Amino acid sequence: MKVKPAANILSANDAIASDNRRLFRENGVFVINLMSSPGAGKTTLLEETIARLSGSIKIAVIEGDVATSADALRIEKTGVPAVQINTGNLCHLDAGMVRSALSEFDIKSLDMLIVENVGNLVCPAEFNVGEDCKAMLLSAAEGDDKPLKYPLMFHESSALVINKTDLIPHTNFSLEKARRDALSINPKLAVFPLSCRTGEGLEDWCGWLADRIGENRCLRG
Amino acid sequence: MKVKPAANILSANDAIASDNRRLFRENGVFVINLMSSPGAGKTTLLEETIARLSGSIKIAVIEGDVATSADALRIEKTGVPAVQINTGNLCHLDAGMVRSALSEFDIKSLDMLIVENVGNLVCPAEFNVGEDCKAMLLSAAEGDDKPLKYPLMFHESSALVINKTDLIPHTNFSLEKARRDALSINPKLAVFPLSCRTGEGLEDWCGWLADRIGENRCLRG
Repeated sequence: MKVKPAANILSANDAIASDNRRLFRENGVFVINLMSSPGAGKTTLLEETIARLSGSIKIAVIEGDVATSADALRIEKTGVPAVQINTGNLCHLDAGMVRSALSEFDIKSLDMLIVENVGNLVCPAEFNVGEDCKAMLLSAAEGDDKPLKYPLMFHESSALVINKTDLIPHTNFSLEKARRDALSINPKLAVFPLSCRTGEGLEDWCGWLADRIGENRCLRG
Repeated sequence: MKVKPAANILSANDAIASDNRRLFRENGVFVINLMSSPGAGKTTLLEETIARLSGSIKIAVIEGDVATSADALRIEKTGVPAVQINTGNLCHLDAGMVRSALSEFDIKSLDMLIVENVGNLVCPAEFNVGEDCKAMLLSAAEGDDKPLKYPLMFHESSALVINKTDLIPHTNFSLEKARRDALSINPKLAVFPLSCRTGEGLEDWCGWLADRIGENRCLRG
C-alpha cells in the first residue's frame, strides 16, 4: 500500500510536459522549475533575481503553494506578472497545473518563465512540467546532510543555490561538505552559495541565468 | 491527473493504523508522530529529548527517510533502540511501514515510541500511523509564513515546537506572528519555542511529553 506515483501517472504527466515544452520552444521562452524545502527562500531569491534582471529580460512567474496567494502577491509587487496555483493538499506541481496557468500570460512576449514549485524536497523532482532546466535551493539552516538524504532533487537539478550563507556562522553547516556531497550525486551541478539578505553571491547566480537565457535566444533564433 | 492520495488509499492506511493503535494500547506504549520540513531539527530535538528523559522513560525511535541510515545511527548513539525505514522516493511514512518496523522492538518494555517522519510539511499529515498524537517542528529559519501556507500539519498536530529560536535575531522571523497564525488554525496547539543549540525551552517540551506519558500510564493501568 504505497502512494508513490505509479508509472502511468508519471507517463501521463510527461505527455503534458512534452506539450508544454513544445509551446515554450515555439514561443522562445526559457523555463526554469525552482524547487526546495519550505522556507529555503525561493520567493525571496526570485524577488532579488527579478530586481537584477527584469530591466533587460521579460520575466513571468507561476507560484505553486498548498494554500494562500502570498507568494504571487510578493512577485506582483516587483512589477512582474505572476499566477498563483493552490494545490490543496497536493505536495508538488505537475505539468497539467502549469498548463492551466499559461493562458494568463502573453507567452510570446516572455524571455523567461519561472515556475516556483511547492516547498518539498521530494516529489517536485519527480514531475516534469516542460521546463528547460530545474534549479533548487538548499538553506544553510537546513543542514549539510540534505544532499545524501534527499538525492533525487540534487540529481535532477542543473543548479544548486545554497542560500542563507549569512547564517552559517551561527550553525554547524559545512559549505564544503554540502557542495562535495551534492557534486558526488550530480557532478554537473552548478553551485551558487549566496545570501539574499546581504546580496553576496547573487551576481553569479543571475549571470548564470542570463547566460542560459542568451543561449536559448541563440538556439531558437 | 492528480496523485493526491485517493480516499481508498487513505482508508486502507487507516485500517492498518487502527491495528497499530490497538497493539500500542495493549502494550501500554505512548506513540508520537514527529513531523517537519527537512532540516527543521527533528533528530537533534530527539537527541536532546532522549538525553533528558531516557533515565526514567523507556524510549524507542523509528526513523523515516528517503535515503541513508544517518538519523538512526545518531539515535543509536544515545543508547536508545532505533530502526531506519527508507522510503525510496516516497515523501511520507504510512501505517504499513511503521507496522513492518515494530517487530524490531520489545514493545511491551517501552513507555514511548517516537516515529520521526520523512522531512515534508505536506503529506505526512495525511497518513495516520496509529499514533496517540502528532507533533511538529517549525524552524525559525523557515519563516513565520508557514502556518498559513501549510495549514494541514498545524491543524493535525497537538504540539508545535518552534526550533532554532537562537537564529531569530539573524532573521525577520516573528515568533508572535508564527504563534498567532498557528493558533488561528488550531487553538488547542501547545506551542514550545526552543533552541536545541542553547537548550533554552527544552524543559517545557520534555515536561509536556512526560505528562502525556504519565496520562497514558494512568489510562492503560
